[in-house]
Amino acid sequence: MSQRPQSTQIRLAARPQGEPKDSDFETTTQEVPELAEGEVLLRTVYLSLDPYMRGRMSAAKSYADPVEIGDVMVGGTVCEVVGSRSERRAVGDVVLAYTGWQTHAVVPARQTQRIDPDLAPISTALGVLGMPGFTAYAGLLEIGRPQPGETLVVAAAAGPVGSAVGQIARLKGLRTVGIAGGPEKVRALSETYGFDVALDHRDPAFREQLEAATPDGVDVYFENVGGPVAAAVWRRLNTYARVPVCGLVADYNATAAPEGPDRLPAFMGSILSRSLTVRGFIQSEFVESHTADFRRDMGAWVRDGDVRYVEDVVDGLDAAVAAFRGMLRGANFGKLLVRVGEDPVRG
Amino acid sequence: MSQRPQSTQIRLAARPQGEPKDSDFETTTQEVPELAEGEVLLRTVYLSLDPYMRGRMSAAKSYADPVEIGDVMVGGTVCEVVGSRSERRAVGDVVLAYTGWQTHAVVPARQTQRIDPDLAPISTALGVLGMPGFTAYAGLLEIGRPQPGETLVVAAAAGPVGSAVGQIARLKGLRTVGIAGGPEKVRALSETYGFDVALDHRDPAFREQLEAATPDGVDVYFENVGGPVAAAVWRRLNTYARVPVCGLVADYNATAAPEGPDRLPAFMGSILSRSLTVRGFIQSEFVESHTADFRRDMGAWVRDGDVRYVEDVVDGLDAAVAAFRGMLRGANFGKLLVRVGEDPVRG
Repeated sequence: MSQRPQSTQIRLAARPQGEPKDSDFETTTQEVPELAEGEVLLRTVYLSLDPYMRGRMSAAKSYADPVEIGDVMVGGTVCEVVGSRSERRAVGDVVLAYTGWQTHAVVPARQTQRIDPDLAPISTALGVLGMPGFTAYAGLLEIGRPQPGETLVVAAAAGPVGSAVGQIARLKGLRTVGIAGGPEKVRALSETYGFDVALDHRDPAFREQLEAATPDGVDVYFENVGGPVAAAVWRRLNTYARVPVCGLVADYNATAAPEGPDRLPAFMGSILSRSLTVRGFIQSEFVESHTADFRRDMGAWVRDGDVRYVEDVVDGLDAAVAAFRGMLRGANFGKLLVRVGEDPVRG
Repeated sequence: MSQRPQSTQIRLAARPQGEPKDSDFETTTQEVPELAEGEVLLRTVYLSLDPYMRGRMSAAKSYADPVEIGDVMVGGTVCEVVGSRSERRAVGDVVLAYTGWQTHAVVPARQTQRIDPDLAPISTALGVLGMPGFTAYAGLLEIGRPQPGETLVVAAAAGPVGSAVGQIARLKGLRTVGIAGGPEKVRALSETYGFDVALDHRDPAFREQLEAATPDGVDVYFENVGGPVAAAVWRRLNTYARVPVCGLVADYNATAAPEGPDRLPAFMGSILSRSLTVRGFIQSEFVESHTADFRRDMGAWVRDGDVRYVEDVVDGLDAAVAAFRGMLRGANFGKLLVRVGEDPVRG
């Protein structure tokens, strides 16, 4: 049993109206509780920041309960076990957990998953080999149903989900069109992630470029942004196109329905006239059915360099709020992680 | 070879702006052409009028080519063979064809399908045992994926598609809620079609009634109307609900996007947060995969009285335009048919 350290936490102080502000969060420090039988004390090494967290800050009904005012913000973490009263985990183990925005936490050992640091960098358990990679894999294969020769479009394509979607689709024989914002990200789409076409949605000629990039239309649109980019892609969808809906980050900060015209009737009309499939999903739905395949396939692709990834690491828990806000604006480049504590010393 | 009769036709004279007007159609008469080898001369007995025809009158891109100005309006028909130069069909045969709004037509015999008048009334080949029944069957089973104990909602529930959807769902063990307009149709939902709950969307308390009728939410919403009814049902959809989109008759006459607010972002948000499946379809997509099952199942259900149907027959081709316009307003009651000619004399 280790000594009882102080834990620093970031808690939700108010439900954000629109873009989250500094005052929507507060930082607290407290001694961690004593371990009960079966529990472990974790020291956070990496905290994952992801767009879905914006939804948890709102009170609206969703697939998961909102974070309550005063609660520690939730989030996936890679942690080192620094205390254990469980036979499942030993001090020094590196684990995947869901301990949120804090430096230390006490949780039941069965709520952690051991990570083998010899297989891949431990941070990838929060990215390409973790939830974002799994979201891309399961959503694309199960809902997108990609067929060789088809055309896939994905936006936020330099992000952890979009970049994996594009690379998996390319491996499945599709023509891939990636969309991102700004020259640096667009360059990465071609040079790092191997998209067949890379487009900048900030370019005034974006719509025309998208049309030129999809001469045979679009068969799979992996939807993770919403907004004007989605509206442009929508026009290019072929009959029987599939649209896995995994995120709508462009709309997350919206506080009210935007002014008209009301595009919903035309949207439903296109679903009907083009026999489209539009399917929202959360990766957890597919954990049971697809985890084994994901580990096998994605593990091999990453190991062999067929799927590449980029991480954007900011240092220190006190940088989390600013980094999260930047992500909602698209300021990060690659999987956004907070290095909350030092990497474990490899034994 | 029979003598060459005159055929009377209704042709599209102009693309309707909003609700079709009389002046959007013209009636012509001409002698039918001589039969070539392999062709048959058909005398129309029943013409089917269906909401999809409104879409064919527009120039917009859709799943099928629009009817050109000057062309005979398309439509499914039950016909008597009155002349034949094909070994496939004999004079006196009753066939299903797609000869449209006219009294006589010459078509290749292979474009007709023989109907056995001993199995069921020949008009049912255009209704419960034809395209509308098949639309209900394939869309509900393949996209709706109904599970026993779930709740299904369908609007236009006294219509040929909606009434079949409700009855098949009930046979599959679902709680069924039917929506129609006006007391006569609502009464038929309970008394004729056996819906568990029948609601009138014209009732000022409709939204509250819908809420009370779906205490466990809605798992399958078979979408064939759009408009405000759809908006009310949408709020009741459960996580993982399925929405086969088969028609949007409330919107068919719309000429421009309605005024805001723009409901599309909230709609996409609900698809995401509730993991909904929204899938447009046209029954033709499922003909190859589902026709044999449909004939077996629906034939038995109709024969045994498990699935009931109502026909609304108007007399004479010159009644077609007014009847079609009425259907878009919901004025018909049951499958709308035009009796274009006398029933064949049974031999």
